[in-house]
Amino acid sequence: MPSPGPTLGEVGESGVLEQVFAALEGSPSAGVQVGPGDDTALLKVRRGALLATTDTMVRGPDWRDDWSTAFDVGVKAVTQNLADLAAMGGTGTGLLVTLVAERSLPLAWARELTEGLAWGCTRAGVPVLGGDLNGAGDEVVMVSITALGELGEDVQKPVLRSGARAGDVVAVSGPLGRSAAGLALLLEHGEDAGSVAPGDLVAELLAHHLRPLTDLTQGPAAARLGATAMIDVSDGLVRDGDRVARASGVVLELAKEAVAALADRLAPAVGGSALGCVLGGGEEHELLACFPGEPPAGWTVLGRVIDLPAGGAPGVVLGGSCLDPRTGGWDHFGG
Amino acid sequence: MPSPGPTLGEVGESGVLEQVFAALEGSPSAGVQVGPGDDTALLKVRRGALLATTDTMVRGPDWRDDWSTAFDVGVKAVTQNLADLAAMGGTGTGLLVTLVAERSLPLAWARELTEGLAWGCTRAGVPVLGGDLNGAGDEVVMVSITALGELGEDVQKPVLRSGARAGDVVAVSGPLGRSAAGLALLLEHGEDAGSVAPGDLVAELLAHHLRPLTDLTQGPAAARLGATAMIDVSDGLVRDGDRVARASGVVLELAKEAVAALADRLAPAVGGSALGCVLGGGEEHELLACFPGEPPAGWTVLGRVIDLPAGGAPGVVLGGSCLDPRTGGWDHFGG
Repeated sequence: MPSPGPTLGEVGESGVLEQVFAALEGSPSAGVQVGPGDDTALLKVRRGALLATTDTMVRGPDWRDDWSTAFDVGVKAVTQNLADLAAMGGTGTGLLVTLVAERSLPLAWARELTEGLAWGCTRAGVPVLGGDLNGAGDEVVMVSITALGELGEDVQKPVLRSGARAGDVVAVSGPLGRSAAGLALLLEHGEDAGSVAPGDLVAELLAHHLRPLTDLTQGPAAARLGATAMIDVSDGLVRDGDRVARASGVVLELAKEAVAALADRLAPAVGGSALGCVLGGGEEHELLACFPGEPPAGWTVLGRVIDLPAGGAPGVVLGGSCLDPRTGGWDHFGG
Repeated sequence: MPSPGPTLGEVGESGVLEQVFAALEGSPSAGVQVGPGDDTALLKVRRGALLATTDTMVRGPDWRDDWSTAFDVGVKAVTQNLADLAAMGGTGTGLLVTLVAERSLPLAWARELTEGLAWGCTRAGVPVLGGDLNGAGDEVVMVSITALGELGEDVQKPVLRSGARAGDVVAVSGPLGRSAAGLALLLEHGEDAGSVAPGDLVAELLAHHLRPLTDLTQGPAAARLGATAMIDVSDGLVRDGDRVARASGVVLELAKEAVAALADRLAPAVGGSALGCVLGGGEEHELLACFPGEPPAGWTVLGRVIDLPAGGAPGVVLGGSCLDPRTGGWDHFGG
């Protein structure tokens, strides 16, 4: 096994920063008036309003070093944050990155993380504006990103969670449950998961769990088509759908056949747990949206929005039953 | 000792978020078009460009629970971030807050943290736009903030680190070394530090270490007066001065009497270590700036900017000696 090389503690803060900046060379810089290296960044804002969101990955709860490379973690952190912008109808204009790490972390890991961040940012055309670097106790590694953006071209207003109305079509921008299925494969087979048949599907599920790359241009596309409500599926279809339902004061009624079709796609790899992956699987980073008419090409219709029944509560309904968001999704602290 | 009450793990993510949002009620909201509770925030930007910076506090390296209350941590985190905006000539328009914490953290601590954040934000007129909440392993608590802002009124361009020119006056917006002196008192006397004579000075030093509140309007004021370079003193006078010197390709020549006067102010509390506190003490969050003429009223002149001597390197000089930023300041990873 090759030596992991020097650690952050051995190189010191300025050494780490030099390495980090080097990995960002050639990354996008559109709109950046002052970049990394001063007290703050200065970013051009064309349209008078800025989208801002933040999301963090923690080693342990959010990734395992035996399954995820540092490059994977960088790519996934970028996708997670840009998906939140897409869910408002926006696109990224800049990222701030914070790394908090134990002194014993290999410098090579931090460097590869930055390469993953740079790769994800270059793919999306989003510059890295700056960041922060902090030491922490043993066993701690976390990557926190703030993503800044603007509404996409020809998008006039942000798409909130609260605009769904009875009669709207409920649709999703791509398959669901892939990340959860990939994780299930890793939990069952460990690093040998890639050799479970059928190969292409398994490879897709593992890749989507480790390094999700969804088409985030679908967010502005949905907004242009008049999406009434939209959310990034990061905590699961039921939990995120429930958020839309509650914010809008409606019920999302899912069609059994549509949900079953999503599960059928996963079944060759994960068998009977496919439905659970579809309903409860987080970290999908596909977009769930409601439309007054047809969704954009390539989206999958999952059901429709209905009015609250008399005395009923907002939520997600499947086959006449209200689904429980507490069991269908992911809670960062709950049991 | 009263029971610390339920933990984050017992209450779960949605319970924590409810408590957090409650503590932010009545906080500033100017410019916020979409606030916490959707996928991203939407913030009005009046002047076509946005300042963005991020800074993180980690329990252990950055605070100790036996000395700092959660409220203190919240206030300090706000000041740290807004000081970086001030150092560009800017003011805050919004904050994003991330809390990463062990499941066993008392909910009351998270609530009090948020109260400190809200207090600091209200004092500065800056809204909290949103944030993120993450579980982590035992012993981990960290608070990461991203501060967004704009250039202050009548400030035409950001003040960078790189604009200092020979002949400029070097000045600081307030006393230096107070945070380091406060920390030294805590390290020596622990929780009894408050009873060391003379009381008023000691109280000031402890307060500045635990809960720094500098006058951040001095940043835009300095910019309006034509400051050529500026930096927030977060890592120490020598280290931050060295950054300005290197970015500008000049030498900052400090006057011995001016530095001694800053140290004399601390000496009644910390004796012989006062000079070290002034030169190397971080977390001051006063502003260090260079001016082509007089600094604003209330600033203290520390020296002047001189050209690089033939064959010489940029840096900070005191009494003819070049000060070493490695020994004068704080490194997050170095020994």
